[in-house]
Amino acid sequence: MPKDKPRSRPPELRVSFLPFRINVKTQPGTTLLEAIRRASPPLKTTCGGKGTCGDCIVKIVHGVYKRKPSAALPDQLAAQNYALACQTEISDGLTVELPEFQELSIRSLPDTRFIEENKDKLSGVYELDSLAKIVALQIPSPTLEDNSSDLKRIQRELHKKFSLKNMDCAHSVLKKLGLSVREDQGRVKLVVGEWGENRTIIDVWPGPRRKRLCGVACDLGTSTVVLHLVDLENGKILSTASSYNHQIKRGEDIISRINYAQTPGRLRELHELIVMTVNNLIHKTARSARISLADIYFGSFSGNTTMTHLFLNLEPRFIREEPYVPTLNTVPIVSSRALGLKMNEEARLFCAPMVGSYVGGDITAGLLATPMLRDSERISLFIDVGTNGELVVGNKEWLITCACSAGPAFEGSGIRCGMPAAAGAIEQVKMKDDETIDYSVIGGTKPKGLCGSGLIDLLGELFIHGHIDRCGKFKGQKSAGRLRETEEGMGFLIEKGDKSFWGKDLVIAERDISKLIRTKGAMFSACSLLLKKVGLSYDKIDSFYIGGGFGQNLNIENSIRIGLVPDLARDKFHYLGNTSLLGAYLILLSRKNMDLVGGLAERMTYVELNTEPAYMNEYTGALFLPHTDMDLFPSVKQIFRP
Amino acid sequence: MPKDKPRSRPPELRVSFLPFRINVKTQPGTTLLEAIRRASPPLKTTCGGKGTCGDCIVKIVHGVYKRKPSAALPDQLAAQNYALACQTEISDGLTVELPEFQELSIRSLPDTRFIEENKDKLSGVYELDSLAKIVALQIPSPTLEDNSSDLKRIQRELHKKFSLKNMDCAHSVLKKLGLSVREDQGRVKLVVGEWGENRTIIDVWPGPRRKRLCGVACDLGTSTVVLHLVDLENGKILSTASSYNHQIKRGEDIISRINYAQTPGRLRELHELIVMTVNNLIHKTARSARISLADIYFGSFSGNTTMTHLFLNLEPRFIREEPYVPTLNTVPIVSSRALGLKMNEEARLFCAPMVGSYVGGDITAGLLATPMLRDSERISLFIDVGTNGELVVGNKEWLITCACSAGPAFEGSGIRCGMPAAAGAIEQVKMKDDETIDYSVIGGTKPKGLCGSGLIDLLGELFIHGHIDRCGKFKGQKSAGRLRETEEGMGFLIEKGDKSFWGKDLVIAERDISKLIRTKGAMFSACSLLLKKVGLSYDKIDSFYIGGGFGQNLNIENSIRIGLVPDLARDKFHYLGNTSLLGAYLILLSRKNMDLVGGLAERMTYVELNTEPAYMNEYTGALFLPHTDMDLFPSVKQIFRP
Repeated sequence: MPKDKPRSRPPELRVSFLPFRINVKTQPGTTLLEAIRRASPPLKTTCGGKGTCGDCIVKIVHGVYKRKPSAALPDQLAAQNYALACQTEISDGLTVELPEFQELSIRSLPDTRFIEENKDKLSGVYELDSLAKIVALQIPSPTLEDNSSDLKRIQRELHKKFSLKNMDCAHSVLKKLGLSVREDQGRVKLVVGEWGENRTIIDVWPGPRRKRLCGVACDLGTSTVVLHLVDLENGKILSTASSYNHQIKRGEDIISRINYAQTPGRLRELHELIVMTVNNLIHKTARSARISLADIYFGSFSGNTTMTHLFLNLEPRFIREEPYVPTLNTVPIVSSRALGLKMNEEARLFCAPMVGSYVGGDITAGLLATPMLRDSERISLFIDVGTNGELVVGNKEWLITCACSAGPAFEGSGIRCGMPAAAGAIEQVKMKDDETIDYSVIGGTKPKGLCGSGLIDLLGELFIHGHIDRCGKFKGQKSAGRLRETEEGMGFLIEKGDKSFWGKDLVIAERDISKLIRTKGAMFSACSLLLKKVGLSYDKIDSFYIGGGFGQNLNIENSIRIGLVPDLARDKFHYLGNTSLLGAYLILLSRKNMDLVGGLAERMTYVELNTEPAYMNEYTGALFLPHTDMDLFPSVKQIFRP
Repeated sequence: MPKDKPRSRPPELRVSFLPFRINVKTQPGTTLLEAIRRASPPLKTTCGGKGTCGDCIVKIVHGVYKRKPSAALPDQLAAQNYALACQTEISDGLTVELPEFQELSIRSLPDTRFIEENKDKLSGVYELDSLAKIVALQIPSPTLEDNSSDLKRIQRELHKKFSLKNMDCAHSVLKKLGLSVREDQGRVKLVVGEWGENRTIIDVWPGPRRKRLCGVACDLGTSTVVLHLVDLENGKILSTASSYNHQIKRGEDIISRINYAQTPGRLRELHELIVMTVNNLIHKTARSARISLADIYFGSFSGNTTMTHLFLNLEPRFIREEPYVPTLNTVPIVSSRALGLKMNEEARLFCAPMVGSYVGGDITAGLLATPMLRDSERISLFIDVGTNGELVVGNKEWLITCACSAGPAFEGSGIRCGMPAAAGAIEQVKMKDDETIDYSVIGGTKPKGLCGSGLIDLLGELFIHGHIDRCGKFKGQKSAGRLRETEEGMGFLIEKGDKSFWGKDLVIAERDISKLIRTKGAMFSACSLLLKKVGLSYDKIDSFYIGGGFGQNLNIENSIRIGLVPDLARDKFHYLGNTSLLGAYLILLSRKNMDLVGGLAERMTYVELNTEPAYMNEYTGALFLPHTDMDLFPSVKQIFRP
């Protein structure tokens, strides 16, 4: 320790990073990049702070700063208060938005076309049979002859008018009962909830006042969280919002979060971060639909096993320790108070059940979007490609499932030109000839990057037009005009900097292609292995359902070309988008759906691939485009020109 | 408003009154009596502050004060820091204890002799069949082949070993589950609760550690609250404590509390005062028995309808407005968290059901102490004399009940020489001849006053020895040596000041006797009317059970002489003491008892005396000793010398 304390210290400045509200203390004169380096997650730079790569671009939302001019910062971005962190000196407190995590309008929504077109096969899937209903009653006034208690008279009317027996009553409702029953001559409205064995009055108010009956359905994704606010009286989605999972600042994947949670107090922190993320979305949707938080009585949540544990504040450690056993699979109904969710004080939460450590509620809920829980004849295969990959084979009679570490490449994560399916993402790519690349961008702006469906298209097109070989390596001469050396190895130019949003060339590197191939290889080999386990081959599969956050309009042809999915008749494929959210919504809609999904934890057979020796063989074979065994992909073999 | 602010104000001193922690701000130089007058409940004085009556005696617990000498303050009390408030000048902050509300060791306990002697008739009344049990399990370790979740493996073992199916699990238990199951190679202990349709795991801990399983049984009296801490593994009462209900400072009877609760925020205040009272008793008993609060998993509470409403934080207003309808009669199981009780975080509370606005859970619970819920042949009458009087006639097949405003006279309240059955109370009185009065004092000290059983004895002895006439007036000449004029009219000396605790003559005034006669008259006439309602006369009554806080050893002979109870064969009477507490304890002990009492709200016929015209006639006839119709009391008539 120094003997003399300095007499005066330079003033401390605070830099706050959005959207995670990470605060860093710093001194005047330091660069923004130095400050960011102390934050988590840090910004990656390629040029090391020379102002040439443009990677450290941020948006200054509030505060005073000095910015050196830089060729890597396009004028139109400079005009919108974007700056390169390495070229910006801090002279005052700043609020800075990290573009990678800007509150994007993420398009991680369900694709409901299949379900709409097949309502008849999915009997009652949209049928409204909600957990709660509003009931209007005229309670007879008490008399000296019949001086039954207020609760008794209400219970009697519920039985008489609606055949509802043995109604329990929440404590907070009892507190309002006496006054509510008398304010408007016995006219009251009740919210009556029924779930499992419970029948409970969860709200009461007097007279003709109108009050909404709403619920939320929420996909608790590792990276993004998406939430529907739903009117439980008609099933309509009133508003939808999504955001990054604020847990990202404590770890990007579930393994790093499980590790983070091992220090005392940090499980609670992760729990509070996901609760805050969900509360923000509830606020946002409620405000936009002009719904009071007190009108939200139910929550239906679906997430992978780790996310569900963190959401419930449960120890996640044993999920990743052999033999990979979670605290629970079937989740009891929990009160919103227990978790700190901002809803009606009597709100109840349902979490879709897990099957094992790596097949969670996102999958069981997702199955509701397919006919697999209702159809006992045809055999289907369902894959969900998220931060991890999960798959299910079977039908109403039997279901087998497994997970694989596919990696988040198709969500745009870890890929330099990748991004989620949000505004600015290229979601479709078509190479007309060897030179011209057509693409469409979500929101119609200049492109910022490519989302999953865009990456699949790009890979498929590059492969089929002969720019890359079966290992994903550039062939050279053919694509010479677009090939360039990058700091991450050889890359292929998709769009020039002057036509891209960030003013930088949009390039896909060989290293990125490699990651995409490993991801698709993991998915495909898991599918093959699971089928072998049950003695089936791909031709026995009647339907192939694909869920995930790829973006709208997944191109099946290109998915087959790169070997992500098998070479089956095209009409067997159905892209369903965010099946986890769709499932959570369907559960909120109807107790029938809730019951269907409720028993799944018990019924599904879970295969642990981590310990399956045959998996490595399958995987190695799948690390080619489309596969080492070309005969598995006859339609690709036919048009393939080596 | 004054134009000039005074430059300096005299310092403010704080006087704090125990046990209610009422704080009053005052200036130096004021007397303690002036300060007390601003507190509620105020001290009554007869001499108006001259230092002669000795009524305003208080105990100075802490602080500096100046005390003028006074003849009305005995030396031995002065030595113990007692002082007359009117003769004490405040010169510093003080903490003062009001003797009337000193934390007395109130003897408001059940008298279990009857139940002990009649165990065979009361089948299973003491049988232990608690709401919860501790279960030790050896959970098999998970394997890659059987990777069922922790909860699933526990549920499976519970089913296998104890045939416990469909076990739910509390959220707080889920949080500990993963670590508990692994800490000691799968050896865990669980607390399994079963109530109503619920079966829930409410606690878990690893290995061989011993943890107690306790509950509390509590009589929520209007004036006093009594609580047993009970070991639920063997049914033993570990510790008992009682105190004044802290709500007293906001109203001494239930009507004044209901009125008080009408101002916003005050219902909550009353609720918090009773919760504080109960929490203090829980703390006290737990400390004395060396039990952790976290080991208390259940609470069984019995109180009158208003007390139960205030305890549950429910609007009490309509209890006292015609047609006298409470919010509820049957109380759902409530979590201790909802009320703020300091117990295990998963503790559940059961409140004995009410029958109507003036027949509450103290009565339904109290019936468990009689054979009335188990015997279908003999007809019994049960009266409970507390702050109000309630009575029940019938047997297992039918029960009819009513309440009457008996007043709290037999609890010692409103009677100048009256006090609760606590240390210092005369509980038995015997006049040997016209001059000598023998008495026994609880605790064997000098007498402070008389409790209910002492007052009944005194009244009976005065009557039968001819000191008072049938209207309760002193006859004069006979008792001349003991008669004296008091500020409240003519009085009869029971004990001289030098032999009494407070150094004052113990005197009963005519006005007090009058109150006692009105109370016994209300009880007796209610009994008579209720029997007429069901077409029965007293000779059809096989047993007469008496509950209440009279004190131990109620003298039946004197109770008959004064006409509190009818003139039946003496062996038909059974004094049961605090039946409300005994009932709460029996409910805690066994689900069988809980079920017996659970349905009572529906089964009992409630008669509203308030609106019964015949009641006034009956009452007027009962305002004599023993009754206007002496033929109703042949045994008294026989020995009566007018």
